[in-house]
Amino acid sequence: MLALKGIEYDYAAKHLLEGDHLEDGYAELNPMRELPTLVIDGQTLTQSTAIIEYLEETRPSPMNLLPKDAAGRAQVRALMQIIASDIQPVQNLRVLKKVMAEHSDPAIKTTKKMEWGKWAIEVGFDGLEAALQKTAGKFAYGDEITLADACIVPQVYNAGRFGVDMSAYPTIARVCAAAEQLPAFKAADPSMMPDKF
Amino acid sequence: MLALKGIEYDYAAKHLLEGDHLEDGYAELNPMRELPTLVIDGQTLTQSTAIIEYLEETRPSPMNLLPKDAAGRAQVRALMQIIASDIQPVQNLRVLKKVMAEHSDPAIKTTKKMEWGKWAIEVGFDGLEAALQKTAGKFAYGDEITLADACIVPQVYNAGRFGVDMSAYPTIARVCAAAEQLPAFKAADPSMMPDKF
Repeated sequence: MLALKGIEYDYAAKHLLEGDHLEDGYAELNPMRELPTLVIDGQTLTQSTAIIEYLEETRPSPMNLLPKDAAGRAQVRALMQIIASDIQPVQNLRVLKKVMAEHSDPAIKTTKKMEWGKWAIEVGFDGLEAALQKTAGKFAYGDEITLADACIVPQVYNAGRFGVDMSAYPTIARVCAAAEQLPAFKAADPSMMPDKF
Repeated sequence: MLALKGIEYDYAAKHLLEGDHLEDGYAELNPMRELPTLVIDGQTLTQSTAIIEYLEETRPSPMNLLPKDAAGRAQVRALMQIIASDIQPVQNLRVLKKVMAEHSDPAIKTTKKMEWGKWAIEVGFDGLEAALQKTAGKFAYGDEITLADACIVPQVYNAGRFGVDMSAYPTIARVCAAAEQLPAFKAADPSMMPDKF
Protein backbone atom coordinates (compact mmCIF):
# COMPACT_ATOMS: atom_id res chain seq x y z
CA MET A 1 0.00 0.00 0.00
CA LEU A 2 2.85 2.38 0.84
CA ALA A 3 4.52 1.47 -2.45
CA LEU A 4 1.28 1.94 -4.43
CA LYS A 5 0.89 5.39 -2.92
CA GLY A 6 4.56 6.23 -3.46
CA ILE A 7 5.16 6.88 0.26
CA GLU A 8 8.75 6.67 1.49
CA TYR A 9 9.12 4.97 4.86
CA ASP A 10 11.53 3.59 7.43
CA TYR A 11 11.07 -0.12 8.09
CA ALA A 12 11.34 -1.44 11.65
CA ALA A 13 11.41 -5.23 11.64
CA LYS A 14 9.54 -7.17 14.33
CA HIS A 15 10.29 -10.88 14.26
CA LEU A 16 7.05 -12.65 15.16
CA LEU A 17 8.63 -16.03 15.77
CA GLU A 18 11.10 -14.43 18.19
CA GLY A 19 8.31 -12.54 19.96
CA ASP A 20 9.54 -9.01 19.20
CA HIS A 21 5.89 -7.89 19.04
CA LEU A 22 5.19 -9.09 22.56
CA GLU A 23 7.63 -6.68 24.22
CA ASP A 24 6.03 -4.05 26.46
CA GLY A 25 7.47 -1.12 24.55
CA TYR A 26 5.69 -2.24 21.40
CA ALA A 27 2.34 -2.50 23.21
CA GLU A 28 2.56 1.26 23.75
CA LEU A 29 2.34 1.65 19.97
CA ASN A 30 0.03 -1.28 19.27
CA PRO A 31 -2.25 -2.39 22.12
CA MET A 32 -3.02 -5.74 20.40
CA ARG A 33 0.76 -6.36 20.02
CA GLU A 34 0.24 -7.12 16.36
CA LEU A 35 1.76 -6.07 13.05
CA PRO A 36 1.63 -3.68 11.34
CA THR A 37 1.93 -0.32 13.06
CA LEU A 38 2.38 2.81 10.96
CA VAL A 39 3.62 6.08 12.49
CA ILE A 40 2.72 8.86 10.08
CA ASP A 41 1.55 12.49 10.23
CA GLY A 42 2.20 12.46 13.97
CA GLN A 43 -0.30 9.61 14.38
CA THR A 44 0.30 6.03 15.46
CA LEU A 45 -1.99 3.83 13.40
CA THR A 46 -2.82 0.15 13.87
CA GLN A 47 -4.98 -2.51 12.18
CA SER A 48 -4.23 -3.07 8.49
CA THR A 49 -7.59 -2.04 7.08
CA ALA A 50 -7.77 1.09 9.26
CA ILE A 51 -4.28 2.06 8.08
CA ILE A 52 -5.04 1.58 4.39
CA GLU A 53 -8.32 3.50 4.67
CA TYR A 54 -6.34 6.36 6.27
CA LEU A 55 -3.75 6.37 3.49
CA GLU A 56 -6.51 6.30 0.88
CA GLU A 57 -8.26 9.28 2.51
CA THR A 58 -5.13 11.39 3.03
CA ARG A 59 -3.15 10.44 -0.12
CA PRO A 60 -5.52 10.44 -3.11
CA SER A 61 -2.58 10.54 -5.52
CA PRO A 62 -0.98 8.99 -7.50
CA MET A 63 -4.06 6.75 -7.70
CA ASN A 64 -7.26 5.97 -5.86
CA LEU A 65 -7.50 2.45 -4.47
CA LEU A 66 -11.22 2.50 -3.74
CA PRO A 67 -13.96 3.00 -6.38
CA LYS A 68 -15.60 6.41 -6.63
CA ASP A 69 -19.12 5.11 -5.89
CA ALA A 70 -20.32 4.01 -2.45
CA ALA A 71 -21.66 0.69 -3.77
CA GLY A 72 -18.32 -0.12 -5.36
CA ARG A 73 -16.47 0.82 -2.20
CA ALA A 74 -18.76 -1.51 -0.23
CA GLN A 75 -17.96 -4.37 -2.61
CA VAL A 76 -14.20 -3.77 -2.36
CA ARG A 77 -14.39 -3.50 1.44
CA ALA A 78 -16.33 -6.78 1.57
CA LEU A 79 -13.57 -8.49 -0.43
CA MET A 80 -10.99 -6.95 1.92
CA GLN A 81 -12.83 -8.24 4.98
CA ILE A 82 -13.00 -11.80 3.66
CA ILE A 83 -9.22 -11.69 4.06
CA ALA A 84 -8.89 -9.35 7.04
CA SER A 85 -11.68 -10.82 9.15
CA ASP A 86 -12.56 -14.30 7.88
CA ILE A 87 -9.16 -15.72 6.98
CA GLN A 88 -6.08 -13.99 8.39
CA PRO A 89 -7.12 -13.86 12.07
CA VAL A 90 -8.10 -17.54 12.08
CA GLN A 91 -4.68 -18.66 10.84
CA ASN A 92 -2.39 -16.15 12.52
CA LEU A 93 0.44 -17.07 14.86
CA ARG A 94 -1.58 -16.55 18.04
CA VAL A 95 -4.27 -19.00 16.97
CA LEU A 96 -1.80 -21.55 15.60
CA LYS A 97 0.05 -21.48 18.92
CA LYS A 98 -3.25 -22.17 20.66
CA VAL A 99 -3.95 -25.10 18.33
CA MET A 100 -0.49 -26.53 18.96
CA ALA A 101 -0.82 -26.12 22.73
CA GLU A 102 -3.48 -28.84 22.70
CA HIS A 103 -0.80 -31.41 21.82
CA SER A 104 2.54 -32.42 23.29
CA ASP A 105 4.12 -34.45 20.47
CA PRO A 106 6.16 -32.07 18.25
CA ALA A 107 5.22 -33.90 15.06
CA ILE A 108 1.53 -33.77 15.90
CA LYS A 109 1.85 -30.08 16.80
CA THR A 110 3.19 -29.38 13.33
CA THR A 111 0.61 -31.53 11.59
CA LYS A 112 -2.26 -29.90 13.47
CA LYS A 113 -0.91 -26.40 12.82
CA MET A 114 -0.59 -27.01 9.09
CA GLU A 115 -3.99 -28.67 8.87
CA TRP A 116 -5.67 -25.81 10.74
CA GLY A 117 -4.09 -23.08 8.64
CA LYS A 118 -4.95 -24.86 5.39
CA TRP A 119 -8.55 -25.31 6.56
CA ALA A 120 -8.94 -21.64 7.54
CA ILE A 121 -7.60 -20.43 4.21
CA GLU A 122 -9.61 -22.90 2.12
CA VAL A 123 -12.89 -22.02 3.84
CA GLY A 124 -12.20 -18.36 3.15
CA PHE A 125 -10.99 -18.92 -0.39
CA ASP A 126 -14.16 -20.88 -1.20
CA GLY A 127 -16.15 -17.74 -0.44
CA LEU A 128 -13.60 -15.35 -1.97
CA GLU A 129 -13.53 -17.30 -5.24
CA ALA A 130 -17.33 -17.11 -5.47
CA ALA A 131 -17.27 -13.39 -4.66
CA LEU A 132 -14.55 -12.63 -7.20
CA GLN A 133 -16.42 -14.45 -9.96
CA LYS A 134 -18.96 -11.61 -9.68
CA THR A 135 -16.58 -8.68 -9.19
CA ALA A 136 -13.28 -9.42 -10.90
CA GLY A 137 -11.97 -7.98 -14.14
CA LYS A 138 -8.25 -7.87 -14.64
CA PHE A 139 -8.01 -7.30 -10.88
CA ALA A 140 -10.22 -8.22 -7.91
CA TYR A 141 -12.76 -5.48 -8.58
CA GLY A 142 -12.90 -4.53 -12.22
CA ASP A 143 -9.85 -3.53 -14.19
CA GLU A 144 -8.23 -1.13 -11.72
CA ILE A 145 -6.12 -2.13 -8.75
CA THR A 146 -7.90 -1.67 -5.41
CA LEU A 147 -7.39 -2.29 -1.72
CA ALA A 148 -8.86 -5.74 -2.28
CA ASP A 149 -5.83 -6.77 -4.33
CA ALA A 150 -3.56 -5.42 -1.58
CA CYS A 151 -5.21 -7.90 0.82
CA ILE A 152 -5.41 -10.85 -1.57
CA VAL A 153 -1.74 -11.02 -2.60
CA PRO A 154 -0.24 -11.58 0.88
CA GLN A 155 -2.98 -14.09 1.72
CA VAL A 156 -2.19 -16.13 -1.41
CA TYR A 157 1.46 -16.04 -0.35
CA ASN A 158 0.45 -17.50 2.99
CA ALA A 159 -1.76 -20.08 1.28
CA GLY A 160 1.39 -21.41 -0.36
CA ARG A 161 3.02 -21.86 3.03
CA PHE A 162 0.09 -24.03 4.15
CA GLY A 163 -0.04 -26.13 0.98
CA VAL A 164 -3.33 -24.82 -0.39
CA ASP A 165 -3.92 -26.06 -3.96
CA MET A 166 -4.57 -22.85 -5.88
CA SER A 167 -5.90 -24.73 -8.91
CA ALA A 168 -9.17 -24.88 -6.98
CA TYR A 169 -9.26 -21.06 -6.97
CA PRO A 170 -8.65 -19.94 -10.56
CA THR A 171 -10.04 -16.43 -10.17
CA ILE A 172 -8.07 -15.72 -7.00
CA ALA A 173 -4.93 -17.07 -8.67
CA ARG A 174 -5.50 -14.99 -11.80
CA VAL A 175 -6.09 -11.64 -10.08
CA CYS A 176 -3.19 -12.30 -7.70
CA ALA A 177 -0.87 -13.00 -10.63
CA ALA A 178 -2.00 -9.80 -12.33
CA ALA A 179 -1.32 -7.71 -9.22
CA GLU A 180 2.07 -9.32 -8.70
CA GLN A 181 3.17 -7.90 -12.07
CA LEU A 182 2.95 -4.36 -10.70
CA PRO A 183 6.17 -2.76 -9.39
CA ALA A 184 4.54 -1.85 -6.06
CA PHE A 185 3.68 -5.48 -5.38
CA LYS A 186 7.15 -6.64 -6.42
CA ALA A 187 8.61 -4.09 -3.99
CA ALA A 188 6.45 -5.51 -1.16
CA ASP A 189 7.31 -9.16 -1.75
CA PRO A 190 8.62 -10.81 1.44
CA SER A 191 11.88 -11.57 -0.36
CA MET A 192 12.45 -7.81 -0.73
CA MET A 193 12.11 -7.02 2.99
CA PRO A 194 15.25 -6.02 4.93
CA ASP A 195 14.62 -8.86 7.40
CA LYS A 196 13.75 -11.50 4.82
CA PHE A 197 14.18 -15.09 5.94
CA MET B 1 -26.54 0.64 13.04
CA LEU B 2 -29.82 0.63 11.15
CA ALA B 3 -31.56 1.89 14.28
CA LEU B 4 -28.93 4.60 14.87
CA LYS B 5 -29.45 5.81 11.32
CA GLY B 6 -33.23 5.57 11.59
CA ILE B 7 -33.49 3.15 8.64
CA GLU B 8 -36.62 1.01 8.44
CA TYR B 9 -35.96 -2.58 7.40
CA ASP B 10 -37.44 -6.03 6.94
CA TYR B 11 -35.77 -8.68 9.07
CA ALA B 12 -35.11 -12.14 7.60
CA ALA B 13 -34.01 -14.53 10.33
CA LYS B 14 -31.28 -17.07 9.62
CA HIS B 15 -30.83 -19.58 12.42
CA LEU B 16 -27.11 -20.32 12.61
CA LEU B 17 -27.47 -23.37 14.83
CA GLU B 18 -29.95 -24.87 12.36
CA GLY B 19 -27.67 -24.08 9.42
CA ASP B 20 -30.03 -21.71 7.58
CA HIS B 21 -26.99 -19.75 6.39
CA LEU B 22 -25.45 -22.81 4.73
CA GLU B 23 -28.29 -23.23 2.22
CA ASP B 24 -27.29 -22.71 -1.42
CA GLY B 25 -29.81 -19.95 -2.00
CA TYR B 26 -28.22 -17.85 0.72
CA ALA B 27 -24.75 -18.25 -0.80
CA GLU B 28 -26.05 -16.35 -3.83
CA LEU B 29 -26.47 -13.34 -1.54
CA ASN B 30 -23.49 -13.94 0.72
CA PRO B 31 -20.60 -15.96 -0.74
CA MET B 32 -19.07 -16.60 2.71
CA ARG B 33 -22.48 -17.90 3.91
CA GLU B 34 -22.27 -15.59 6.92
CA LEU B 35 -24.48 -13.06 8.64
CA PRO B 36 -25.34 -10.30 8.09
CA THR B 37 -26.44 -9.51 4.54
CA LEU B 38 -28.13 -6.18 3.82
CA VAL B 39 -30.11 -5.62 0.61
CA ILE B 40 -30.45 -1.86 0.15
CA ASP B 41 -30.46 0.68 -2.71
CA GLY B 42 -30.54 -2.24 -5.17
CA GLN B 43 -27.24 -3.52 -3.75
CA THR B 44 -26.55 -6.73 -1.86
CA LEU B 45 -23.99 -5.91 0.83
CA THR B 46 -21.99 -8.30 3.02
CA GLN B 47 -19.37 -8.09 5.78
CA SER B 48 -20.41 -6.05 8.82
CA THR B 49 -17.78 -3.34 8.59
CA ALA B 50 -18.28 -2.85 4.84
CA ILE B 51 -22.01 -2.52 5.44
CA ILE B 52 -21.66 0.05 8.20
CA GLU B 53 -19.16 2.09 6.18
CA TYR B 54 -21.68 2.12 3.32
CA LEU B 55 -24.50 3.29 5.59
CA GLU B 56 -22.24 5.98 7.05
CA GLU B 57 -21.31 7.23 3.56
CA THR B 58 -24.82 7.22 2.13
CA ARG B 59 -26.82 8.24 5.24
CA PRO B 60 -25.01 11.11 6.98
CA SER B 61 -28.12 11.98 8.96
CA PRO B 62 -29.44 11.92 11.65
CA MET B 63 -25.88 11.62 12.97
CA ASN B 64 -22.36 10.81 11.82
CA LEU B 65 -20.86 7.70 13.34
CA LEU B 66 -17.26 8.37 12.30
CA PRO B 67 -15.21 11.42 13.38
CA LYS B 68 -14.77 14.26 10.89
CA ASP B 69 -10.96 14.03 10.81
CA ALA B 70 -9.01 11.26 9.08
CA ALA B 71 -6.89 10.54 12.16
CA GLY B 72 -10.00 10.11 14.30
CA ARG B 73 -11.59 7.85 11.70
CA ALA B 74 -8.44 5.71 11.70
CA GLN B 75 -8.62 5.37 15.48
CA VAL B 76 -12.30 4.38 15.40
CA ARG B 77 -11.69 1.90 12.58
CA ALA B 78 -8.82 0.37 14.56
CA LEU B 79 -11.16 -0.14 17.53
CA MET B 80 -13.73 -1.67 15.17
CA GLN B 81 -11.20 -4.08 13.74
CA ILE B 82 -10.09 -5.31 17.15
CA ILE B 83 -13.62 -6.72 17.33
CA ALA B 84 -14.27 -7.48 13.66
CA SER B 85 -10.89 -9.04 12.88
CA ASP B 86 -9.15 -10.04 16.10
CA ILE B 87 -12.01 -11.35 18.20
CA GLN B 88 -15.24 -12.23 16.42
CA PRO B 89 -13.82 -14.45 13.65
CA VAL B 90 -11.75 -16.45 16.14
CA GLN B 91 -14.79 -17.34 18.26
CA ASN B 92 -17.49 -17.68 15.63
CA LEU B 93 -19.54 -20.82 15.08
CA ARG B 94 -17.37 -22.15 12.24
CA VAL B 95 -14.22 -22.06 14.36
CA LEU B 96 -15.93 -23.45 17.46
CA LYS B 97 -17.24 -26.37 15.38
CA LYS B 98 -13.68 -27.01 14.22
CA VAL B 99 -12.43 -26.96 17.82
CA MET B 100 -15.16 -29.40 18.88
CA ALA B 101 -14.44 -31.72 15.95
CA GLU B 102 -11.09 -32.56 17.57
CA HIS B 103 -12.92 -34.37 20.35
CA SER B 104 -15.52 -37.12 20.56
CA ASP B 105 -16.77 -36.87 24.14
CA PRO B 106 -19.74 -34.45 24.24
CA ALA B 107 -18.74 -33.01 27.63
CA ILE B 108 -15.18 -32.36 26.44
CA LYS B 109 -16.53 -30.79 23.22
CA THR B 110 -18.49 -28.29 25.29
CA THR B 111 -15.61 -27.60 27.68
CA LYS B 112 -13.18 -27.02 24.81
CA LYS B 113 -15.64 -24.80 22.96
CA MET B 114 -16.25 -22.60 25.99
CA GLU B 115 -12.57 -22.44 26.88
CA TRP B 116 -11.63 -21.45 23.30
CA GLY B 117 -14.26 -18.73 23.02
CA LYS B 118 -13.34 -17.27 26.40
CA TRP B 119 -9.65 -17.25 25.43
CA ALA B 120 -10.30 -15.53 22.09
CA ILE B 121 -12.39 -12.80 23.69
CA GLU B 122 -10.01 -12.22 26.61
CA VAL B 123 -6.96 -11.87 24.35
CA GLY B 124 -8.85 -9.31 22.30
CA PHE B 125 -10.32 -7.50 25.29
CA ASP B 126 -6.83 -7.16 26.83
CA GLY B 127 -5.85 -5.11 23.77
CA LEU B 128 -9.19 -3.33 23.47
CA GLU B 129 -9.10 -2.24 27.11
CA ALA B 130 -5.62 -0.75 26.62
CA ALA B 131 -6.73 0.97 23.42
CA LEU B 132 -9.88 2.41 25.00
CA GLN B 133 -7.93 3.82 27.94
CA LYS B 134 -6.39 6.19 25.37
CA THR B 135 -9.48 6.94 23.26
CA ALA B 136 -12.60 6.66 25.42
CA GLY B 137 -14.71 9.46 26.78
CA LYS B 138 -18.31 8.73 27.56
CA PHE B 139 -18.20 6.33 24.61
CA ALA B 140 -15.42 4.32 22.93
CA TYR B 141 -13.99 7.32 21.09
CA GLY B 142 -14.64 10.56 22.90
CA ASP B 143 -18.11 11.63 23.95
CA GLU B 144 -20.04 10.86 20.77
CA ILE B 145 -21.31 7.46 19.73
CA THR B 146 -19.31 5.91 16.85
CA LEU B 147 -19.10 2.73 14.84
CA ALA B 148 -16.69 1.41 17.48
CA ASP B 149 -19.52 1.29 20.04
CA ALA B 150 -21.68 -0.53 17.51
CA CYS B 151 -19.04 -3.28 17.40
CA ILE B 152 -18.25 -3.37 21.11
CA VAL B 153 -21.78 -3.87 22.44
CA PRO B 154 -22.52 -7.19 20.66
CA GLN B 155 -19.06 -8.51 21.51
CA VAL B 156 -19.61 -7.78 25.21
CA TYR B 157 -22.91 -9.62 24.93
CA ASN B 158 -21.04 -12.61 23.54
CA ALA B 159 -18.40 -12.32 26.26
CA GLY B 160 -21.17 -12.97 28.76
CA ARG B 161 -22.09 -16.20 26.98
CA PHE B 162 -18.50 -17.43 27.36
CA GLY B 163 -18.16 -16.45 31.02
CA VAL B 164 -15.67 -13.60 30.57
CA ASP B 165 -15.22 -11.65 33.82
CA MET B 166 -15.87 -8.06 32.76
CA SER B 167 -14.44 -6.66 36.00
CA ALA B 168 -11.04 -7.10 34.31
CA TYR B 169 -12.18 -4.70 31.58
CA PRO B 170 -13.59 -1.63 33.34
CA THR B 171 -13.34 0.74 30.36
CA ILE B 172 -14.97 -1.71 27.95
CA ALA B 173 -17.73 -2.34 30.49
CA ARG B 174 -18.28 1.38 31.07
CA VAL B 175 -18.54 2.43 27.42
CA CYS B 176 -20.71 -0.58 26.67
CA ALA B 177 -23.10 0.33 29.49
CA ALA B 178 -23.25 3.92 28.20
CA ALA B 179 -24.13 2.79 24.68
CA GLU B 180 -26.73 0.35 25.95
CA GLN B 181 -28.67 3.28 27.40
CA LEU B 182 -29.39 4.60 23.89
CA PRO B 183 -32.74 3.67 22.30
CA ALA B 184 -31.04 2.36 19.14
CA PHE B 185 -29.00 -0.13 21.15
CA LYS B 186 -32.04 -1.18 23.16
CA ALA B 187 -33.88 -1.79 19.88
CA ALA B 188 -31.03 -4.02 18.65
CA ASP B 189 -30.77 -6.15 21.77
CA PRO B 190 -31.05 -9.86 20.94
CA SER B 191 -34.12 -10.07 23.16
CA MET B 192 -35.88 -7.64 20.80
CA MET B 193 -35.30 -9.69 17.64
CA PRO B 194 -38.29 -11.42 16.03
CA ASP B 195 -36.49 -14.78 16.28
CA LYS B 196 -35.22 -14.31 19.83
CA PHE B 197 -34.37 -17.47 21.68
